[in-house]
Amino acid sequence: MKAMVFHGPGRREWEDVPDPEPVEPTDAVVRITAATICGTDLHILKGDVPEVEPGRVLGHEGVGVVERVGAAVTAIKPGDRVLVSCISACGRCSYCRTGVYGQCLGGGGWILGHTVDGTHAEYVRVPFADTSTHRLPEAVPDGAAVMLSDILPTAYEVGVLNGGVRPGQVVAVVGAGPIGLAAVETAKLFSPGLVVAVDLAPTRLDAAKQFGADVTVNAAEDVERVVFELTGGMGADVAIEAVGVPETFELCTRLIRPGGRVANVGVHGKPATLHLEHLWIRNATITTGLVDTVTTPTLLTMLAGGRLDAARFATHHFALDEMDLAYDVFARAGETGALKVVLTR
Amino acid sequence: MKAMVFHGPGRREWEDVPDPEPVEPTDAVVRITAATICGTDLHILKGDVPEVEPGRVLGHEGVGVVERVGAAVTAIKPGDRVLVSCISACGRCSYCRTGVYGQCLGGGGWILGHTVDGTHAEYVRVPFADTSTHRLPEAVPDGAAVMLSDILPTAYEVGVLNGGVRPGQVVAVVGAGPIGLAAVETAKLFSPGLVVAVDLAPTRLDAAKQFGADVTVNAAEDVERVVFELTGGMGADVAIEAVGVPETFELCTRLIRPGGRVANVGVHGKPATLHLEHLWIRNATITTGLVDTVTTPTLLTMLAGGRLDAARFATHHFALDEMDLAYDVFARAGETGALKVVLTR
Amino acid sequence: MKAMVFHGPGRREWEDVPDPEPVEPTDAVVRITAATICGTDLHILKGDVPEVEPGRVLGHEGVGVVERVGAAVTAIKPGDRVLVSCISACGRCSYCRTGVYGQCLGGGGWILGHTVDGTHAEYVRVPFADTSTHRLPEAVPDGAAVMLSDILPTAYEVGVLNGGVRPGQVVAVVGAGPIGLAAVETAKLFSPGLVVAVDLAPTRLDAAKQFGADVTVNAAEDVERVVFELTGGMGADVAIEAVGVPETFELCTRLIRPGGRVANVGVHGKPATLHLEHLWIRNATITTGLVDTVTTPTLLTMLAGGRLDAARFATHHFALDEMDLAYDVFARAGETGALKVVLTR
Amino acid sequence: MKAMVFHGPGRREWEDVPDPEPVEPTDAVVRITAATICGTDLHILKGDVPEVEPGRVLGHEGVGVVERVGAAVTAIKPGDRVLVSCISACGRCSYCRTGVYGQCLGGGGWILGHTVDGTHAEYVRVPFADTSTHRLPEAVPDGAAVMLSDILPTAYEVGVLNGGVRPGQVVAVVGAGPIGLAAVETAKLFSPGLVVAVDLAPTRLDAAKQFGADVTVNAAEDVERVVFELTGGMGADVAIEAVGVPETFELCTRLIRPGGRVANVGVHGKPATLHLEHLWIRNATITTGLVDTVTTPTLLTMLAGGRLDAARFATHHFALDEMDLAYDVFARAGETGALKVVLTR
Repeated sequence: MKAMVFHGPGRREWEDVPDPEPVEPTDAVVRITAATICGTDLHILKGDVPEVEPGRVLGHEGVGVVERVGAAVTAIKPGDRVLVSCISACGRCSYCRTGVYGQCLGGGGWILGHTVDGTHAEYVRVPFADTSTHRLPEAVPDGAAVMLSDILPTAYEVGVLNGGVRPGQVVAVVGAGPIGLAAVETAKLFSPGLVVAVDLAPTRLDAAKQFGADVTVNAAEDVERVVFELTGGMGADVAIEAVGVPETFELCTRLIRPGGRVANVGVHGKPATLHLEHLWIRNATITTGLVDTVTTPTLLTMLAGGRLDAARFATHHFALDEMDLAYDVFARAGETGALKVVLTR
Repeated sequence: MKAMVFHGPGRREWEDVPDPEPVEPTDAVVRITAATICGTDLHILKGDVPEVEPGRVLGHEGVGVVERVGAAVTAIKPGDRVLVSCISACGRCSYCRTGVYGQCLGGGGWILGHTVDGTHAEYVRVPFADTSTHRLPEAVPDGAAVMLSDILPTAYEVGVLNGGVRPGQVVAVVGAGPIGLAAVETAKLFSPGLVVAVDLAPTRLDAAKQFGADVTVNAAEDVERVVFELTGGMGADVAIEAVGVPETFELCTRLIRPGGRVANVGVHGKPATLHLEHLWIRNATITTGLVDTVTTPTLLTMLAGGRLDAARFATHHFALDEMDLAYDVFARAGETGALKVVLTR
Repeated sequence: MKAMVFHGPGRREWEDVPDPEPVEPTDAVVRITAATICGTDLHILKGDVPEVEPGRVLGHEGVGVVERVGAAVTAIKPGDRVLVSCISACGRCSYCRTGVYGQCLGGGGWILGHTVDGTHAEYVRVPFADTSTHRLPEAVPDGAAVMLSDILPTAYEVGVLNGGVRPGQVVAVVGAGPIGLAAVETAKLFSPGLVVAVDLAPTRLDAAKQFGADVTVNAAEDVERVVFELTGGMGADVAIEAVGVPETFELCTRLIRPGGRVANVGVHGKPATLHLEHLWIRNATITTGLVDTVTTPTLLTMLAGGRLDAARFATHHFALDEMDLAYDVFARAGETGALKVVLTR
Repeated sequence: MKAMVFHGPGRREWEDVPDPEPVEPTDAVVRITAATICGTDLHILKGDVPEVEPGRVLGHEGVGVVERVGAAVTAIKPGDRVLVSCISACGRCSYCRTGVYGQCLGGGGWILGHTVDGTHAEYVRVPFADTSTHRLPEAVPDGAAVMLSDILPTAYEVGVLNGGVRPGQVVAVVGAGPIGLAAVETAKLFSPGLVVAVDLAPTRLDAAKQFGADVTVNAAEDVERVVFELTGGMGADVAIEAVGVPETFELCTRLIRPGGRVANVGVHGKPATLHLEHLWIRNATITTGLVDTVTTPTLLTMLAGGRLDAARFATHHFALDEMDLAYDVFARAGETGALKVVLTR
């Protein structure tokens, strides 16, 4: 089959590799019908994720049709259309037993396109298939469903739920890329009083408006002043960090009111400064986290019921064998305006 | 009356000042029968808390007998023996209405010995007396009750409750001064599996053992190694920071398991480094906070019922008019071994 | 002034009574500019609430302008336009200190039109005014604001929050009178997957649709069958009881899935049968409660921001001195189709 | 092998049956080394649980050594000493994915000795072995460990955790049989202010004292009066029902303060009366539930660390092949004073 293979920093190839087979009795092999590319895939290509070895097939987001299943797989069967979750869950370890799949100790967690071959391929082997895939209702098309592999549950669980968003609250979302926009969209599920989106790119701020932000602020402006004016000098109830650099994290800690929460979603490569000399007395709560994908069934129901719009994340569409071109367009998002690029058969 | 007056950095005097009177209808005047000194009082004396003006009577911990009350005070009356809480609560603002007294917007919060005259005096005016004092049961002696002005509710609310301590968990308490010891004692209310206390001073580690720590580790050792060995390589469920310097905070963030919590109780004067490049993926929760004293009634009941031992914090006893000596002994805790010094009439 | 006075079962009179004055320093007197009538007022008139004594002015819902305040009132002043909450809160007792105003032990709770004179009058004395009134933003008209005295916070707190409604869930609201409709409206704040409204009256089911119900079921039908069909045989996540008779409560306990919740909002006069022989194994949670009105500030913000529509509850409008007529129309709701009748100056 | 077989109401036989074999790849076969009998086993024998068919091997509590495992079992291996949980968990369904194993939709839940053959035998087939057994640390002897199959997690999860017991609270435990005593013991993990145990049998009240009850009340006395006197007229914070008859459940609903909780643990065969005419206004929360056994790992750690005493439940000890005698002694608990009878090889 064809697959997008990592060959060390800066080098990728859409090339022939052997078809995957079930190895463990809990494995499934899924024929990919839709995939999308994540910022993390680009980080891997830059060499920022050293545990990814050359030869690895990239990608952790995908939708497809079950081709084969191991002997112990009971929840899905060949022919089922399924969502492949970006998180694999052994279902047995102490973390999985309480739904904290992202921290799986039994061989799962974020493994696809990381420590095992991923979804940017014609077929993918999905370990722990029973607890790592979701059967798709007919009403949900591939191009929408694939947004539930990662960005929607990530933004919802790590941003909105960790942030504890409640009706009537003021929520600042810092960063309006795909994850930030997904945070705007899913924060709205709790009817906040005001969602303020912050980014440097005017096009992303426009997108934030479309996804439901009430106010947008260019990060070049005095964001703190705007947020404090909007909140009568109190600060936001919740700030969601969706960039992953120290400056935006530190901004988030300045935007919240006493008793407020900072929910970090961004993937960070460097430490930030935590101004405890101000924060120690302010009842701040700061959370970090990897998605568990426990909300995926709920999000899927909402998608099927028309309560969420996932298709609008897709700005560019490609055929699966245009994988190389899709990577190019996504990597140059600044120019191309790409949010999510979707590849389908 | 006599009172301990702050006269600028490094200067204090136990001197004659006018007796306080009720100013607002919600005020009470309390005749102090027991007081204790807090590390914060020493910080003020060093000039670290610039909003404290010369001429201010120090102290935010005290027990006494109600002398006079304003027209709107209904919960206490002259002659009642009361605990003066370190936090004053207007009872009306949006924070007070939900029990977040420490963040009172109506003129309360930490004001005693800070922005209004405090408890290190023969009498103190207590604003918002109905919601800032607690009638004491006879069974609770002054010297025990005064530990409920600040250290026990602070350690319990900001350390143990914010830390979410649960039965069977591993709790690391970093810092075994009075607040750290109070965290050890109140963490035990939740039957943790293991309480590990960390400090540099062997005498404080001994004290931690007495207060219920299962394991003590000298901070000069490799604390991380010890905690990880005790937890099968996982890390602590909860780390409580009870020192207030960057190093101990950062240690706390390294001690916790994925999904663990750091509850900061320490008063910080400098920023810390937050290693988001490690923490972003580890489901960490970090909390800060000022005490609200909403648990004071519960702690008082437990004290009265013999479920808590508060008297043992008092290592040194003085008469109220030995205030000067008491400050000396407390300021030289390293030499004197003082935990809490108690002054009584 | 004129006031609607209860003269024993079946007897009421809009008559002259003395103007109220502040009695306690925490009292305010409010000149009523808008009021509305509650089903509970009708119950009192029937004699169902025996602690209401003849001579009592009825009513616990109102909006007005502060006329006079006692010496200890600081949060409002004469001339302020305020909402009078149906719950008075002493702000000092153990329940009030944690926001459970409905269970106030210090002389508050539901007292207006119950144990002290109420709002169906030209003026009302409001005890504990600081913690029992809310200043109104200009953007919120009287006729909308008055729905926040009781029905919206009651439905939201006792129905939706106690019910723990979450995004994507199936919520059954049994009873589509004003409280049930308010439950439908405020449940939608959490983006449930499906809101099913149940009532006997087709007009009320139509209203439920307008307030946001996705499905309506006539109570004469097999409601259980419909709910189980809609949920793939599982049952509803949450059932909100908004009638107050045994049959509807028992229906609610049959509608929920294992792990589901029944939130009782209805005022009951008789015991119900609890089928523990079925429920003991089903992880049911059943809650009851009186409103605390702690969410009123949030609801007010949402009303001001256009996030809630409160005016639409008002089906009939009267002048304040048409109080008698308003009671008639409301009492014959079955014929008149009245949901809420609003009286304004 | 030998097994205790149900032959219809009133008929049981310790007789020869075929040895069990793994059927599914997720099965294990465990050689029983310790078992205990539950009140539910007696109910089955009386014919109260009609879905148990004649020929069924009884028992859902056991400890043993893994004999054989199916191909997909990875968490345990032959030779491991394991606890067999009374609840089997498929680990894949929507309930299991969030730790609600008791409501498993995938073939698990309470099945042992109910819909599949149980633990009162020399060997037992354990379905879903990875998520339905727990490896035992050496420090925990069989006779203590077997109390974690059912009674300790049941009392802790369904009684204490559902009841939301908190430090300083007053907890009434109604019923001092094995489950009630386990509720007393595990409630103490949260340092309640007062645990009041209620039963009719003086010997059980004595046992309750030994397990940590502060006060015991004979159910023939005026229990309400005692509890209200102990709580200054307020009522208990939490009442745990551990009998399973209408009277005791109704008593629980009368014992709680406004805002209190009733946690039902008892297995009921008849409906109870719920006095909503009193309760509707009192902020009551009533919970029911089947154990999920999610806390078993925690309880096991506490047992291994000496934080729980489980062995003391065992009043009578038998060899496994004295099963018949053990049933007799347990069935006549009134005479024999049996709490738990333990059978070991």
